[in-house]
Amino acid sequence: MKILITSGGTSEAIDSVRAITNQSTGSLGKIMAEIFLKAGHEVTLVTTKNAVKPAEQSRLTIYQITDVASLIATLKTLVKSHDVLIHSMAVSDYTPVYMADFAELQTVTDPAQLLAKRNQETKISSQAEHQVLFLTKTPKVISQIVEWNPNIKLIGFKLLVDVPHEELIEVARESLIKNKADYILANDLKDIQAHQHIGYLVSKTEEIRANTKEDIAQLILERITDD
Amino acid sequence: MKILITSGGTSEAIDSVRAITNQSTGSLGKIMAEIFLKAGHEVTLVTTKNAVKPAEQSRLTIYQITDVASLIATLKTLVKSHDVLIHSMAVSDYTPVYMADFAELQTVTDPAQLLAKRNQETKISSQAEHQVLFLTKTPKVISQIVEWNPNIKLIGFKLLVDVPHEELIEVARESLIKNKADYILANDLKDIQAHQHIGYLVSKTEEIRANTKEDIAQLILERITDD
Repeated sequence: MKILITSGGTSEAIDSVRAITNQSTGSLGKIMAEIFLKAGHEVTLVTTKNAVKPAEQSRLTIYQITDVASLIATLKTLVKSHDVLIHSMAVSDYTPVYMADFAELQTVTDPAQLLAKRNQETKISSQAEHQVLFLTKTPKVISQIVEWNPNIKLIGFKLLVDVPHEELIEVARESLIKNKADYILANDLKDIQAHQHIGYLVSKTEEIRANTKEDIAQLILERITDD
Repeated sequence: MKILITSGGTSEAIDSVRAITNQSTGSLGKIMAEIFLKAGHEVTLVTTKNAVKPAEQSRLTIYQITDVASLIATLKTLVKSHDVLIHSMAVSDYTPVYMADFAELQTVTDPAQLLAKRNQETKISSQAEHQVLFLTKTPKVISQIVEWNPNIKLIGFKLLVDVPHEELIEVARESLIKNKADYILANDLKDIQAHQHIGYLVSKTEEIRANTKEDIAQLILERITDD
């Protein structure tokens, strides 16, 4: 089976030296890749510079991306040639459009005027006491996967922070339906520590709990090969 | 000699999953540490998780920091017990104070009202088409060094992007005087590539050019031991 995994977190540049990053170590992606390779599958890992990665080995191909635009360009092609996509990457929801001194915001009658502006400098200057950064939503990657390959098996991820269990599962199920995914791995940042990673593999009808990254990888492997 | 080096780039958290990062690989800090250790000095390296680091060895101590607040807390103590500080870290100029949907900005009569607000959520929600992030200046670390230790030899760094040479040297010299530094290493991002790193070691009276990271390290070493 040809399995595509995304891991790590995207970064959206503010200027040539600063970026908004989504913090993600890539550990789960690395463990999934290793377990799937061991089971005899071909793995393509789309990840980021700072994410941890498996050692080079046969049947493993690694692509490195930076921002959402490069993620989309890379996935659009790869999704067509894979049987499964496990999309565990932490993808930026917003990307910077314009950064201004606070004073500029106070001079405009409608702040929406600033949404149309773009920075000309390559390194935005830093004299003002306060700055304001305008951001716009990035295109949702996961919602396009099934359009690019209607036959792919799609496992999405949903990370929330410190929410009741019912809410976590409900939000995961909404994502499942909206993005035509086969499963969503729902997890809460409060349940992720060095040797514990509680996750719930949610389908339309069930939710199965796993307690470590290895358990999550094993559970996903069973589901994608059994179904 | 006890030499303190900072390297890598700080990150300022927006919420529990996103941060504004200053991109810096830490390569120059690593090379300086290695060359100074080889010359028989004691090196303390204050760096970040994603920065490259020298191998563990005797006479090398590494501290890991994240944001400007943790950098200040760490340096405040270390500066007192070192003879030299080489401050090559890319330090965040601004830190997030409040992130809001764009609609909230359009409802207030004075945008300054939002500077006093704080996000209550641990992961800021992402429904709106546009968001706006308010930032405030971080305390300038370099300007406090000589207050903490009047006897320390201070080498600061100034990175600009695609400016004329005269401007680069002028800005470095302003920083030298303002921060009571002994030298400023002035460099332009356009002159930094894989095997080239043009830098100018600027004092009140001279500017000496170096062409690689190794040259920069060697030049700084000569100056701090000769003076």
